[in-house]
Amino acid sequence: MSLPVSLRWTGHQLELLDQRRLPHAVEYLRIIDWREVVDAISTMAVRGAPAIGVAAAWGVVLASRAGENLDLAMAALRASRPTAVNLAWSLDRMQECLDKSSNVDPAELTAVAAAIESDDRRLTRCLVAHGVTLLPRGSRVLHHCHTGAIATAGVGTALGVITAAHQRGVLDHAWLDETRPRLQGAALSAWELGCLGVPCTVIVDGASGLLMRKGKVDAVLVGCDRVAANGDVANKIGTYNLALVARAHGIPFYVCAPGSSIDRETVDGDSIRIEERSGSEITHLNGQSIAAPGTEAWNPAFDITPAHLVTALITEFGVLRPPFQEALAKLPLQPQA
Amino acid sequence: MSLPVSLRWTGHQLELLDQRRLPHAVEYLRIIDWREVVDAISTMAVRGAPAIGVAAAWGVVLASRAGENLDLAMAALRASRPTAVNLAWSLDRMQECLDKSSNVDPAELTAVAAAIESDDRRLTRCLVAHGVTLLPRGSRVLHHCHTGAIATAGVGTALGVITAAHQRGVLDHAWLDETRPRLQGAALSAWELGCLGVPCTVIVDGASGLLMRKGKVDAVLVGCDRVAANGDVANKIGTYNLALVARAHGIPFYVCAPGSSIDRETVDGDSIRIEERSGSEITHLNGQSIAAPGTEAWNPAFDITPAHLVTALITEFGVLRPPFQEALAKLPLQPQA
Repeated sequence: MSLPVSLRWTGHQLELLDQRRLPHAVEYLRIIDWREVVDAISTMAVRGAPAIGVAAAWGVVLASRAGENLDLAMAALRASRPTAVNLAWSLDRMQECLDKSSNVDPAELTAVAAAIESDDRRLTRCLVAHGVTLLPRGSRVLHHCHTGAIATAGVGTALGVITAAHQRGVLDHAWLDETRPRLQGAALSAWELGCLGVPCTVIVDGASGLLMRKGKVDAVLVGCDRVAANGDVANKIGTYNLALVARAHGIPFYVCAPGSSIDRETVDGDSIRIEERSGSEITHLNGQSIAAPGTEAWNPAFDITPAHLVTALITEFGVLRPPFQEALAKLPLQPQA
Repeated sequence: MSLPVSLRWTGHQLELLDQRRLPHAVEYLRIIDWREVVDAISTMAVRGAPAIGVAAAWGVVLASRAGENLDLAMAALRASRPTAVNLAWSLDRMQECLDKSSNVDPAELTAVAAAIESDDRRLTRCLVAHGVTLLPRGSRVLHHCHTGAIATAGVGTALGVITAAHQRGVLDHAWLDETRPRLQGAALSAWELGCLGVPCTVIVDGASGLLMRKGKVDAVLVGCDRVAANGDVANKIGTYNLALVARAHGIPFYVCAPGSSIDRETVDGDSIRIEERSGSEITHLNGQSIAAPGTEAWNPAFDITPAHLVTALITEFGVLRPPFQEALAKLPLQPQA
């Protein structure tokens, strides 16, 4: 079974895989109004920093084709999720195109959005090719959240590395953190690896320590939403705990970071704003209450993993080793808009 | 609002609070057949190592009153949950009573079961009194799983300490790990603290690191299912991760361990058999699938926290500090049957 694509520009509308309906149904939102892109991002119909960035670019195209106020559309798209930097990076490329001429040219914007999308396809392939070199034959890899193909416009990041390792015959097993509260691991990663025939087992996020203590994990692979200039990583809540647990067991902790997620303007993790979402994502599931009535919950969507816990950053430019400040500073990160 | 009791012997039947129905309904199972006690333990209608031990003792009383084969009943009760040692400890006390005379005397067994229950009430009060001395004024305490009054026949262990700290005015806030997969934190601990008016907030298990990084936790308090002779602790899955995360932040990690959970016959944590439960506890919730169809899950109910991560063991005899091997060896642990 093959995977459906995360998004598709038809020439006049954006077809966006509705990740909220997965794994139970493969359905596409057919979007012609940029406001629906904002909505799809903020309600997590589209998830994964790279896919969000590409979707936002197509949102700008839709706004330009409808002759709408582009400043307004760009600002709303930019504010639709606060933590991932790909979103801002993608919108900056669109803005650059707009700044080049006094007239808005939807065709030019379409070309830039298409370039952002095809760049993502190329970049994720490069990143995966570098990442898979880190895994020796027989690797058992633990993964957090969802970083697969449908989180990007291409082959995914960390889950893409796991899939490539399986295809090359070096993967023994994939362990998947279920990733509370939204269960991206159990719902999306398990679905995606299932479609691709990769052997995998889901665990609760709290079981990674026992699993490592039993000697069943050789490497941890995660994605990221933002990497600061010093190598601190913002990623899905639970990543930091996992990094601490891996360190305690001497297990390498690899972070897949496409250039679009690297933010050298942000000095460190403490400067990254962490999105806090509704507590009802914790206290309710599929509309059912799963907590005591009236329970309050604190629901940060991301956490910060300090650079010293990261063994290597896997980028499309290659594998970066500490000290990350220097390695990141050298990357040729200017967008080729 | 006050708390309902976890169990009650009426003179002819055992009334057992059905924890599976909490927090939505307070309902009691009315049990006259010991097999229903086995069932209540294995299906987690009664949870919490101390409460399980007391319930099992009443199971033996029910079997004796019905004139049933006590060896069979004891063996089935002993096998109903494998990890907690209180269960075996409680059944050993019942067996001791049986060994004293050649005839089975239900009245004598009733007296022993009542003693086990009232001992638990006294012991948990003592344990809580010792534990609360560890918390300075303004403490913000993080707790895992459920260790409250209804997990015991008395006032609870770790959650009892938190409640007592609130009553003495030294607790600033309780943070509760939701505790996947069974959500005892969100469903039971939040409900119990809510009943008692203790301010609390639920987090996903993966958020403890970020919370500590933000400086919002002063101490971690957990219960346990078994403590080995060297101080290694078996407790609900996720405890080990939490202990590692606390250590990384220099935050004290306290384990509440009633004497009945201390097993000096077991040399260390690696010798403790860990119960593995059905993967459907992870992939399904309230009968609904929450994972990709066909997803496999590994579901160990407990993990092992090595003694070196434990700051102190809180027992009814007092607070034990490392080295635990020596401190545990000195405890006057003979049951006073």
